[in-house]
Amino acid sequence: MPSKTKKITTSVLPGFMELLPADQILFNKMLSIIRDTYESFGFIPLDTPAIERSEVLLAKAGGETEKQIYRFSKGDNDLSLRFDLTVPLARYVSEHFSNLTFPFRRYHIAKVYRGERPQKGRYREFYQCDIDIIGNGTLSLVNDAEILTIIYDVFKGLGLPDFKIRISNRKLINGLLKSLDLKDQAVEVMRIIDKIEKVSPKETKQNLLDIGLSKDKVEKIWEFVGIKGDVKKVLKDLAGMGQKDELFKTGLKELTEVINYIELLGLPVSAYGLDLSIARGLDYYTGTVYETILEDYKEMGSVCSGGRYDNLAENYTSQKLPGVGISIGLTRLFSRLKEAGLIQSGAASPARVLVIPFNQEVTSAALSLGRKLRSSGLATEVYLEEAKFKNKLSYANKLGIRYVVLVGEDEIASSLWTLKDMETGKQQQLATKELIAELKRV
Amino acid sequence: MPSKTKKITTSVLPGFMELLPADQILFNKMLSIIRDTYESFGFIPLDTPAIERSEVLLAKAGGETEKQIYRFSKGDNDLSLRFDLTVPLARYVSEHFSNLTFPFRRYHIAKVYRGERPQKGRYREFYQCDIDIIGNGTLSLVNDAEILTIIYDVFKGLGLPDFKIRISNRKLINGLLKSLDLKDQAVEVMRIIDKIEKVSPKETKQNLLDIGLSKDKVEKIWEFVGIKGDVKKVLKDLAGMGQKDELFKTGLKELTEVINYIELLGLPVSAYGLDLSIARGLDYYTGTVYETILEDYKEMGSVCSGGRYDNLAENYTSQKLPGVGISIGLTRLFSRLKEAGLIQSGAASPARVLVIPFNQEVTSAALSLGRKLRSSGLATEVYLEEAKFKNKLSYANKLGIRYVVLVGEDEIASSLWTLKDMETGKQQQLATKELIAELKRV
Repeated sequence: MPSKTKKITTSVLPGFMELLPADQILFNKMLSIIRDTYESFGFIPLDTPAIERSEVLLAKAGGETEKQIYRFSKGDNDLSLRFDLTVPLARYVSEHFSNLTFPFRRYHIAKVYRGERPQKGRYREFYQCDIDIIGNGTLSLVNDAEILTIIYDVFKGLGLPDFKIRISNRKLINGLLKSLDLKDQAVEVMRIIDKIEKVSPKETKQNLLDIGLSKDKVEKIWEFVGIKGDVKKVLKDLAGMGQKDELFKTGLKELTEVINYIELLGLPVSAYGLDLSIARGLDYYTGTVYETILEDYKEMGSVCSGGRYDNLAENYTSQKLPGVGISIGLTRLFSRLKEAGLIQSGAASPARVLVIPFNQEVTSAALSLGRKLRSSGLATEVYLEEAKFKNKLSYANKLGIRYVVLVGEDEIASSLWTLKDMETGKQQQLATKELIAELKRV
Repeated sequence: MPSKTKKITTSVLPGFMELLPADQILFNKMLSIIRDTYESFGFIPLDTPAIERSEVLLAKAGGETEKQIYRFSKGDNDLSLRFDLTVPLARYVSEHFSNLTFPFRRYHIAKVYRGERPQKGRYREFYQCDIDIIGNGTLSLVNDAEILTIIYDVFKGLGLPDFKIRISNRKLINGLLKSLDLKDQAVEVMRIIDKIEKVSPKETKQNLLDIGLSKDKVEKIWEFVGIKGDVKKVLKDLAGMGQKDELFKTGLKELTEVINYIELLGLPVSAYGLDLSIARGLDYYTGTVYETILEDYKEMGSVCSGGRYDNLAENYTSQKLPGVGISIGLTRLFSRLKEAGLIQSGAASPARVLVIPFNQEVTSAALSLGRKLRSSGLATEVYLEEAKFKNKLSYANKLGIRYVVLVGEDEIASSLWTLKDMETGKQQQLATKELIAELKRV
């Protein structure tokens, strides 16, 4: 009797996503819609190593990032896996500055790594789909409007229901806090405001009082965050606040200009709106900020975020490189959409057609026909195993390949192939040319 | 005066490839030709984590692999970066066995990691483009022929000159060595034979004598390895050796059958040939083996290799999973082809068209036109910065965007856009519809 040797665990590590074929095909389809949309706007593909020097990655990173990072040494090198695509971009642009043309528009779709404690919806390895536009010294504000149209095209392309892009400008809240003499507490205040949708308004207010803000100042912040309505009304109410702070006024001017461009571009007004509670993290962004939510699934949080920053790469270069960009965390988005039933996987094969030879004797004829279909642009698999006819058909069904072409002695003799539609059961006899035409038609 | 803070090194780590835009676009184009060819044969995309449990990766690996691996711990986990895509495939198929349909045809294009000593043409992070067909229990020999047609289609698709796929069958050499009572020295002998093209025949012979083989046995091996010519002649000469070893005879039968299928498929005879000196590593492969060389650049070594194996995943499952597959090391191939001048990069942008507004006042009109071109399927960038007209045109030139559409007050008034061909200098005035038609035509 053969001894059973102990087998090694094959389960995927917690916090890592691994998909079965049909889901993988669906995932790749979403990824390619995002890529094609980015390329349609002239964004250049970038690919940087997943491994970087730790000092590069940790130049700006705070405590949380440092804890989460996958860090290791090899020889004398202190290395880490990238935790986002922005730091590698900063390094890339600094390193290759003289070989790049500005504004530099790049997209980068790749995996990043964060060794977080595994929890629902959080991944340790996940795809980010980023675009950024980097200026050399300056970068026109029109880019901030264009980025919004790109978000719109991506989510429209993905066929997702009722999404809304929320816009704000960090200069508004920064200016407001400055005018209230709260500059030193800005980080704390924004962290509280960022959570406004997750906790109740009442609690948010209490949290602001708890960190020592006077009732007066809380009311001022409350007035600001509470401004709601269509963009025209929000812009009017912001102006009506009578803020004298220069930063605030610049923010309002920028926001108005960005909104003007968006309106001229004719995006549906339901697709975007102003939301002054968006703070987007701590001190990275300096102007326009974006978040994107699915109206009926607000609990998913933002599915595409980003904004404008003054200087991309101050740790690596003395060049001033302002930019604006967005990021889609596709791994998390995919898992949330799947869970919510908003996306469904289809076929488990990229083949459009399965050619089935009746027996081994006609295999070469089947292979030849396969080559002809393929060279007409039809993804075609030929079934090559010995099996019962029933099992060959069932293989097509399991993979979700709808069209099957049967090849037997009769077919070869008559040069007429049998095309079977597995969904309707309909069969037709067709010569090669007609077969190709029919498969391209359906 | 502002103090210059010390900047962090931004150079890429030795052994890692990072490309500038035009090269990256070329690289991606090659990658997508490979992917499309794989999909055209119905191979299913797979994506597994780059990080695996070390015990999974090292289950079968030898000393060299273990030294090269990037290994680290996070929490209680002993983790490593994958060094190939075959071990992850074995784990995947074992883990998801009951959810997969067999034969399971998958492709996987992704980065793998090997911390080798950096040397010319060797990378520590590189793309592998793999296909494998995995049978459940058995797998028909026709697959071995089909794999060869896939290699053919890939290299034809890449437009590479005079490539040749060399084929052999490991059972031949294994059988021969068994019949010579050299089974225990098989590894050593094959390592010497594998290098036959790099060292002289005379030296190879001496190397075989040096490891203690009798002159007789060396002559027998020499007779075998020396069999050359067209496939018919090689098969005849192999039969003529009068080998009685069963393994050898099976190998000859398999090879003959594979060649028969290939001939029936009508591949050009110049595209493939038999080469009995191919051993492909040590004991992984058990049947058909492939190597692909560029006839005029033999020194590049094999650019696509693979073969048949009896059992994919014995360390992880008790299922018997025979398979056949190939791998293209795209990073290395790209760098070699570039160096040899066999591939040239073109544009540094995916945009087909650059829309240039004359001034800020007409920017929205330019953005609107950009959206129209894009929705007609034309990748379009709009130039959004304030700059001298000359510099706007020069931006198009630098990125290699051939077609420029000029938008000014006159154009808006007349609804006729100016299309400029940057290569010929030719200009035409066209309404939106004609502009789109013209851009699609050229």
